[in-house]
Amino acid sequence: MNQPMSKSKTLIVDMQPVGRRIDIEPGKTVLEAAQSAGVGLVSLCGGEGWCESCVIKVAKGEVNSPTYSEDNHLGAEALEDGYRLACQVIPQTDVRIDIPPESLSTPQRLQVEGLDFDIPLAPIVQVADIEVSSPGLEDLRADADRIKDALAERGFGEVHMELPILRDISDVLRANKWSVRIVLREQEVIAILPSGSGIYGISVDIGTTKLAVYLVDLLNGEVVEKVGEMNPQIAYGEDVVSRIGYASQNPGGREALQSALTDALNKKIQEVSKLARIEIDQIVDAVIVGNTAMHHLFAGLPVEQLVFAPYVPAVNAPLDLRASAIGIHLAPGAYIHLLPNIAGYVGADHSAVILSTELWQTDKTVMAIDIGTNTEISLVSKGRLSSCSCASGPAFEGAHISNGMRAAPGAIERVQIIDGEIKVFTIDNEPPVGICGSGILDVVAEMKSANLMDEKGALIEGQLNIRQSEKTHLEFLLAPASTTGHGRDVTVSRKDVNEIQLAKAAIRAGQEILLIKADITPEDIDEVIIAGAFGTYIDVPNAIKVGMFPDIPIDRFHQIGNAAGMGAVQALVSAEHRQLIGDVIKDVDYIELTTYEEFQKEFIQAMYLR
Amino acid sequence: MNQPMSKSKTLIVDMQPVGRRIDIEPGKTVLEAAQSAGVGLVSLCGGEGWCESCVIKVAKGEVNSPTYSEDNHLGAEALEDGYRLACQVIPQTDVRIDIPPESLSTPQRLQVEGLDFDIPLAPIVQVADIEVSSPGLEDLRADADRIKDALAERGFGEVHMELPILRDISDVLRANKWSVRIVLREQEVIAILPSGSGIYGISVDIGTTKLAVYLVDLLNGEVVEKVGEMNPQIAYGEDVVSRIGYASQNPGGREALQSALTDALNKKIQEVSKLARIEIDQIVDAVIVGNTAMHHLFAGLPVEQLVFAPYVPAVNAPLDLRASAIGIHLAPGAYIHLLPNIAGYVGADHSAVILSTELWQTDKTVMAIDIGTNTEISLVSKGRLSSCSCASGPAFEGAHISNGMRAAPGAIERVQIIDGEIKVFTIDNEPPVGICGSGILDVVAEMKSANLMDEKGALIEGQLNIRQSEKTHLEFLLAPASTTGHGRDVTVSRKDVNEIQLAKAAIRAGQEILLIKADITPEDIDEVIIAGAFGTYIDVPNAIKVGMFPDIPIDRFHQIGNAAGMGAVQALVSAEHRQLIGDVIKDVDYIELTTYEEFQKEFIQAMYLR
Repeated sequence: MNQPMSKSKTLIVDMQPVGRRIDIEPGKTVLEAAQSAGVGLVSLCGGEGWCESCVIKVAKGEVNSPTYSEDNHLGAEALEDGYRLACQVIPQTDVRIDIPPESLSTPQRLQVEGLDFDIPLAPIVQVADIEVSSPGLEDLRADADRIKDALAERGFGEVHMELPILRDISDVLRANKWSVRIVLREQEVIAILPSGSGIYGISVDIGTTKLAVYLVDLLNGEVVEKVGEMNPQIAYGEDVVSRIGYASQNPGGREALQSALTDALNKKIQEVSKLARIEIDQIVDAVIVGNTAMHHLFAGLPVEQLVFAPYVPAVNAPLDLRASAIGIHLAPGAYIHLLPNIAGYVGADHSAVILSTELWQTDKTVMAIDIGTNTEISLVSKGRLSSCSCASGPAFEGAHISNGMRAAPGAIERVQIIDGEIKVFTIDNEPPVGICGSGILDVVAEMKSANLMDEKGALIEGQLNIRQSEKTHLEFLLAPASTTGHGRDVTVSRKDVNEIQLAKAAIRAGQEILLIKADITPEDIDEVIIAGAFGTYIDVPNAIKVGMFPDIPIDRFHQIGNAAGMGAVQALVSAEHRQLIGDVIKDVDYIELTTYEEFQKEFIQAMYLR
Repeated sequence: MNQPMSKSKTLIVDMQPVGRRIDIEPGKTVLEAAQSAGVGLVSLCGGEGWCESCVIKVAKGEVNSPTYSEDNHLGAEALEDGYRLACQVIPQTDVRIDIPPESLSTPQRLQVEGLDFDIPLAPIVQVADIEVSSPGLEDLRADADRIKDALAERGFGEVHMELPILRDISDVLRANKWSVRIVLREQEVIAILPSGSGIYGISVDIGTTKLAVYLVDLLNGEVVEKVGEMNPQIAYGEDVVSRIGYASQNPGGREALQSALTDALNKKIQEVSKLARIEIDQIVDAVIVGNTAMHHLFAGLPVEQLVFAPYVPAVNAPLDLRASAIGIHLAPGAYIHLLPNIAGYVGADHSAVILSTELWQTDKTVMAIDIGTNTEISLVSKGRLSSCSCASGPAFEGAHISNGMRAAPGAIERVQIIDGEIKVFTIDNEPPVGICGSGILDVVAEMKSANLMDEKGALIEGQLNIRQSEKTHLEFLLAPASTTGHGRDVTVSRKDVNEIQLAKAAIRAGQEILLIKADITPEDIDEVIIAGAFGTYIDVPNAIKVGMFPDIPIDRFHQIGNAAGMGAVQALVSAEHRQLIGDVIKDVDYIELTTYEEFQKEFIQAMYLR
């Protein structure tokens, strides 16, 4: 995306990762810009420069030199790295500002909740409390053999130990006075803990935008902590394609993207460990899911081929990586399991959706749709699973929409137009500052119902709140300046409507192709499962109204939240389910939409608003 | 060892790793000291300071400030690290000088040759040249699946790939236009090479003092390169105990010792690759042996418990480590196999001796003795293998002997006293500058034969060349100043003789205990195999004469060179032998000598010279 030239007299402050572009008068500080736009930057001292709560990073553009306050609070090193205090920074040009998570007072809405499920607890790891006899001149066995022998006596068969465990074995045995809890993963000893220690697992859903991290008690299967976080790779590009570009074009780019992720994940693992008051060493297993690009970037796999047709992954099969080999701090011998990918744009996160929605074992006709920048769709019909991916674009994440923003406080998430009255509902009931995905979908549906546009999406002059914009185009005034958090109008343009048309048409055309290939009609679908954060918050009747979904009875739709995260948790608590999804995915029919002539036809059809 | 005070007017230059202590006049340079003592320091410009061939490191003591030449040739950074030019350095006090290998003109005698053997070539790796179909819109398989499928078609069954291979897979396939040679280790793909590439393996014997590295062609089993090198851990302590002390008492000590080894090994691997004109990626397997401490330090395992009774290893079982996980650069997916240890002081190197001497399959009565600072002895009798270790000390490596030195040019390695005439033979026929292990053994045997000492080792006044030393002790003049390379007498003291008595007594007592436990006598031994560098060069009749070995017919003794290195090569070329030695070692009876009262008795008996 090129940096557009600012209009005369105002400068643009692009706030990341919250996704807000704010026009400010020259001379205003970044903190003032954030406040005017309703972006919740922490400011304990109220912008006086007495504290360091509003620390931000200037990523692009010219600003004033550091002030005395900043020298004082941040120090030379942080300043050199581009860190500043938002209350002191006065943009001289258009700028991009990165807000570290700790400076955001109102975290963005991140989805870590999800499906409940009830499967037998049988993780891949098991524990054994053993007493090991200590060495003496009459018993000269190696430390490793003491453990092997004690486990064999307890009926665990022949076990083996690898370097990560062996490196601590002598100290740990002596520190625990030869009485320890052994954690076995199949026949490998992966942790040696004090007797009676709890054991835990981590499940992670790596989204392009967000990470969801779950800490699971592996002795009872309960999710004990859930935390969300922005994906720090955003600094290298907002979408998958720009990140892959960065990884392939910069020396060390792949490694930089990988370590951004592993660093963030290590921090989150520490955070949940602290919350749950456990030691990192007690986390003995992990399952990670993500789209194919996130999967590959996390594992340090090649990604360049993912952006060139035919977009083949380096690997689809499930992977078991030693956590330490990839820089993730867990128990010394812990592994990380990556669920299988299905194709270049249907990744392990969708495999997790298939697992948690039980598509693999239903005899009904079920469609599962995970809406995002890429929307993955799976259909099970007569026991056969087929999947596809459609490029739905970032419009539903608030990007490429003139007043769009991510789902943060002040975002309009619901819109009703009843009898010429426009009602907007915002996240946390803050004064509106922009529109997030579900709000944009609502606006389009409601505008169409209220006849403010035609079926091609053209706004109709003279209708309610339709007005000429500065640029001689028509626009719809959704929230007038007097009601908003930043004192400016929130509007919807013809182009915004078009972005939504493109997105919903892609999603709908994907569904249609899967139906055609399965030789069934929408009416045959018993259940439509809508997964993912955006999918959770959309108004399904409005989504049907704009044609994103087929017009079938509303009670067939189920919005289930982060099914990918829940699939990752299932694969953590059940070794059998982990194995099973690996096998199921081998038999999925992947449909590459770009090879189908019908797709283009369906796509054009689906563009209409009827 | 404390730095002794220098005598008035002379300073001591302790040259490492060659093991020479040289008295010099104040004002002399280190190069002059080296030359006077016959230490082969490279000096291309003849000491004029025009080149940088005589670079050394001042490890201890005061010297003059760097000269203009040194500023010029070495640069500030090297000087700060203590590097200097030997021709410019003038000691101001006693000093210790470390000579980097590249500055030694005459490499020390390092043993890399060994047994010939004839076993079927069947390494753990195998190759398959495959053509992989390239992706297209009709063939969207992941890159890994293309390889899997092609191998399955060729009858290789289900293979798997791990991260190290997957990280390059996409690039390598495309760079080689989908036609590649796959290297499989059991069912894992460990390398993807251009079609028809040769494949190689590395065997390494990590001695406390020396490394021996063999490059083996895995397609025909031939050893194509052999190189030796000093063990760089010498910088952290000459013997195992002082290195373990360093590792346990210094933060990061274990890691420092490990990376000293891995760095040296990586350099040697590069060196043999260059010599053989192959790429590092073609080295697809490795076998490493060493004593238990070297084994543990190489793998980064805990060593502290090895210096406290009962000296138990962290692990005895064979280990397969991913080379990349331990910082050794080979083919991306290559593993390193470590042969099993037997006990804290009978390590994987002795397992390799047992393998290459075929002790595991003989029905004769055979004793194998590997003489070093620790001497490991194994006895096979009636098909049962027993092993022990005795602390024979470093005397046979020239240490703790007044004029002792390692086996380098100018070292006296053979001595004859016939009819009152003393003959000395030196390595490379250089003028004598000291005595190495085999020479010391000869001296003691010949002195005893010539009645220059009694059976307790006391020198007899008035006998040939026996004279009063400065310190009022008796000493034997072996080579007068007029004949030596440094113009000083080479002598043997009562204390030197005593060191040899202690060493040979320990070795002999170990043999006796094994014989007692097996309930046999020396006469029952069919063969005595003497392994190791020192063992290769000793005069067996003299060794019998001093009582190091039992007095049985000389034709039962075989000196076989570096049997440990050859065992490592065997384990490289034969997966079956690798497996087999792992099983054999489990059944070895390890005898801890310190628990046997008889040992002390035997040891005292064995001190006598009869």
